[in-house]
Amino acid sequence: MLKKLERISYLYDIYGNLLTEKQQKALQLYYFDNYSLGEIAGEYSISRQGVYDLLRRAIESLENMEASMNLYERYSYRKKKLEEALDVIGVANPEKVDFYRLKGIIEELSRENEG
Amino acid sequence: MLKKLERISYLYDIYGNLLTEKQQKALQLYYFDNYSLGEIAGEYSISRQGVYDLLRRAIESLENMEASMNLYERYSYRKKKLEEALDVIGVANPEKVDFYRLKGIIEELSRENEG
Repeated sequence: MLKKLERISYLYDIYGNLLTEKQQKALQLYYFDNYSLGEIAGEYSISRQGVYDLLRRAIESLENMEASMNLYERYSYRKKKLEEALDVIGVANPEKVDFYRLKGIIEELSRENEG
Repeated sequence: MLKKLERISYLYDIYGNLLTEKQQKALQLYYFDNYSLGEIAGEYSISRQGVYDLLRRAIESLENMEASMNLYERYSYRKKKLEEALDVIGVANPEKVDFYRLKGIIEELSRENEG
């Protein structure tokens, strides 16, 4: 569940601006401000089922955009590679830095950026 | 004009999947396959003005998505920073690598990735 919430949260950060305002607001209230379905239903004067459908379709839109654009996947890839690069460079003694590996990582990031 | 074409081309690579199929096809024919407005009009059995409007709205959508998400701007930033990093690391003598600058660039890329 936490994994699902984390995923929705990242997808929302990336693609949220492309949702309708109503979808954005509903996701915010439900997932980030911990409103119940009933409370949101009251806010919008729609049924609980209506809120449920609104949320479901909003998440479906986010997942469709990710399927088209892979921005979360690409963000995660860059994060992993940049952490690797910082690990390589983070040794106490600069003379011990593995520059060949570091160069390889930067080249991988460059290819990813053009991909 | 080349600048404009380059921009449309990048925006299309990034956001094209989010356009309608008709918009995608029209942009492809006009900007990348060098069809004339008249030829595309024939293809779709619409007026030249209709094709013109179709293209204009497609580009407007691409620009609106960029205004929301800044993916082209972010891609360009990463490209510049990764080129800087490769320059720093590309010196003939590994002992001459400016390690602190390199670390700074990787940290900037990490911040950008989370931004």
